[in-house]
Amino acid sequence: MIRILFADKPENRPRYEGPLTRAIAQTGIVAEIVQPGETDPASVDYIVYSPQGPVQDFTPFTRAKAVLNLWAGVERVVGNETLTQPLCRMVDLGLERGMVEYVTGHVLRYHLGLDATLAAQDGVWRHDTGVPPLARDRSVVMLGLGALGRTCAEALAGLGFKVTGWSRTPKDISGIDCLSGPDGLHAALARAEILVSILPDTPGTTNLLNSETLALLPEGARIINPGRGTLIDDDALLAALDAGRVGHATLDVFRVEPLPPEHPYWAHPKVTVTPHIAAESRAETASEVVAENIRRGEAGEPFLYLVDRSRGY
Amino acid sequence: MIRILFADKPENRPRYEGPLTRAIAQTGIVAEIVQPGETDPASVDYIVYSPQGPVQDFTPFTRAKAVLNLWAGVERVVGNETLTQPLCRMVDLGLERGMVEYVTGHVLRYHLGLDATLAAQDGVWRHDTGVPPLARDRSVVMLGLGALGRTCAEALAGLGFKVTGWSRTPKDISGIDCLSGPDGLHAALARAEILVSILPDTPGTTNLLNSETLALLPEGARIINPGRGTLIDDDALLAALDAGRVGHATLDVFRVEPLPPEHPYWAHPKVTVTPHIAAESRAETASEVVAENIRRGEAGEPFLYLVDRSRGY
Ligand SMILES: NC(=O)c1ccc[n+]([C@@H]2O[C@H](COP(=O)([O-])OP(=O)(O)OC[C@H]3O[C@@H](n4cnc5c(N)ncnc54)[C@H](OP(=O)(O)O)[C@@H]3O)[C@@H](O)[C@H]2O)c1
Ligand SMILES: NC(=O)c1ccc[n+]([C@@H]2O[C@H](COP(=O)([O-])OP(=O)(O)OC[C@H]3O[C@@H](n4cnc5c(N)ncnc54)[C@H](OP(=O)(O)O)[C@@H]3O)[C@@H](O)[C@H]2O)c1
Repeated sequence: MIRILFADKPENRPRYEGPLTRAIAQTGIVAEIVQPGETDPASVDYIVYSPQGPVQDFTPFTRAKAVLNLWAGVERVVGNETLTQPLCRMVDLGLERGMVEYVTGHVLRYHLGLDATLAAQDGVWRHDTGVPPLARDRSVVMLGLGALGRTCAEALAGLGFKVTGWSRTPKDISGIDCLSGPDGLHAALARAEILVSILPDTPGTTNLLNSETLALLPEGARIINPGRGTLIDDDALLAALDAGRVGHATLDVFRVEPLPPEHPYWAHPKVTVTPHIAAESRAETASEVVAENIRRGEAGEPFLYLVDRSRGY
Repeated sequence: MIRILFADKPENRPRYEGPLTRAIAQTGIVAEIVQPGETDPASVDYIVYSPQGPVQDFTPFTRAKAVLNLWAGVERVVGNETLTQPLCRMVDLGLERGMVEYVTGHVLRYHLGLDATLAAQDGVWRHDTGVPPLARDRSVVMLGLGALGRTCAEALAGLGFKVTGWSRTPKDISGIDCLSGPDGLHAALARAEILVSILPDTPGTTNLLNSETLALLPEGARIINPGRGTLIDDDALLAALDAGRVGHATLDVFRVEPLPPEHPYWAHPKVTVTPHIAAESRAETASEVVAENIRRGEAGEPFLYLVDRSRGY
């Protein structure tokens, strides 16, 4: 009998209880799922973790074999100095599909000019100016080619877009023009009619989009950021939008969330705010990933989606 | 030397001249491209045709081996009693890709609730109600599984949607639940959270969506019609929108085009009008199809996309 601590917000427990119990039973492992406060920390084998949950100090969990994050982003736990246990990210099918749907939806929205369509319900038949170019003539750039970025880039290429990807290390992905490093970033930005970022929050990505890099974009480029809010120097983006250098931005993530009601993004005519809804772990599919990692831990097999703490993601 | 009549609107000639000349040269056939009025009709070998062009009477074209339509829809020519020559539809890659982009864009718009997103830029962070279901839990129905409908249905299935297709004759397409006939229509409509029609205009499709069939849809269903305007009984749709039975409609095609400025669709809060821009033949790719059919005609091979005039499409 192993003991699993469910260390997310208590409100989320009902949603996870059934799926997690079923997924663990599927592996054949006999386990008890407990909440913080219900048990002696030194008796816990695995911590199912969310940064919104009550656990901040991992020191008392002397026996825990892994911290299994329910979120894809780990920036709120990776720097925790009390964390000595292996940390695994969530790579959830529900999360991946949610991100693909958000990204393809907003890229097609920009590609087809849907905002203008919705605004043009005025009785004027604009056939001759209304036919958009084909996706094969539209250059989309994806910053970040990890579990999520790569899948989104492939979905966009599948819809026919000309897709360029950019990551830290060089990659070779069929149908995607893959660039890396600082020179690669400059080349990628210069061709980004639509720029999507699914980069994590790390020291290397903070303010990556600033007044200098935004100046490399083609005039009127559109930006979609469902990665992390720290990517963007907000003042530089607002200035680039006002100057027309950037045509429009759709932002799902922010330095402070919820985005405060008085933040200029809300009222800006060239910004669409979405409330961090691009992708969320779904209890069913995420529980399967957690259970598989517990099975691996018990069998002495390597964990899935282990975080490289030196890189920070 | 064969003679090809370019019988589209004169304004379109410059756009087609280069691509058509190049595409025919590629086949090795020596040809002259002429305009109506420039030549004796009895000397014409092939008619490149558009219903917007000047040719109404095919009787004088005694030698013409085929009428090669530049449009996918043939309803404005198929009933022409002077037409005794074989008639071919256009199945253009540009047209197909345009249709896929329009359909996936508007389906994702409805799926993600983008209109509500754009309306909710008011400083309220709606995280808890904002996460949409996954595409795998969204049922999309495609009426028409021809060259265009099938490709769109496959693209939607590729994005993860639960796709049902409906056509005149039974079909078997991997990843699509294919229905046919009147019973199939009822079953399809009953599950259509999002209904897309890419049906041609024929006696069998006229007013197919009427007050009885609209009543079969799930409450709040969304309709996308880039097929033909005659599909819909307009008064019945307006009544269903007002009653809330249909949640929203995006219409690209109409009984009368341009849609008159006073038509109630323009001002209706639950209707998006697009000006027949879902898909258009592109000169480059359409010219290749025309040239291939001329090559086939000269070689005595069967034409591509020959219209079955008894079915009307
Ligand atoms: N908005 C939402 O609802 C939502 C939901 C889920 C996730 N997210 C965000 O999406 C992020 C990405 O998720 P993922 O699962 O795809 O992560 P991942 O698999 O760790 O991939 C991260 C990608 O970013 C690249 N990268 C990291 N630092 C870089 C740098 N300094 N320069 C260039 N490239 C760099 C990595 O390059 P290498 O491949 O070369 O290492 C990798 O391709 C998460 O960290 C999270 O912040 C947002
Ligand atoms: N909005 C735009 O910009 C635009 C652009 C291009 C085309 N279109 C429209 O799209 C239409 C379809 O194009 P396509 O190339 O896909 O045509 P297609 O290849 O001829 O396919 C027509 C499809 O409709 C089905 N069908 C016809 N009559 C039916 C009936 N009475 N009941 C049930 N199914 C029926 C056919 O069924 P079977 O397969 O069983 O025969 C077939 O699957 C065109 O006719 C045109 O009107 C619009």
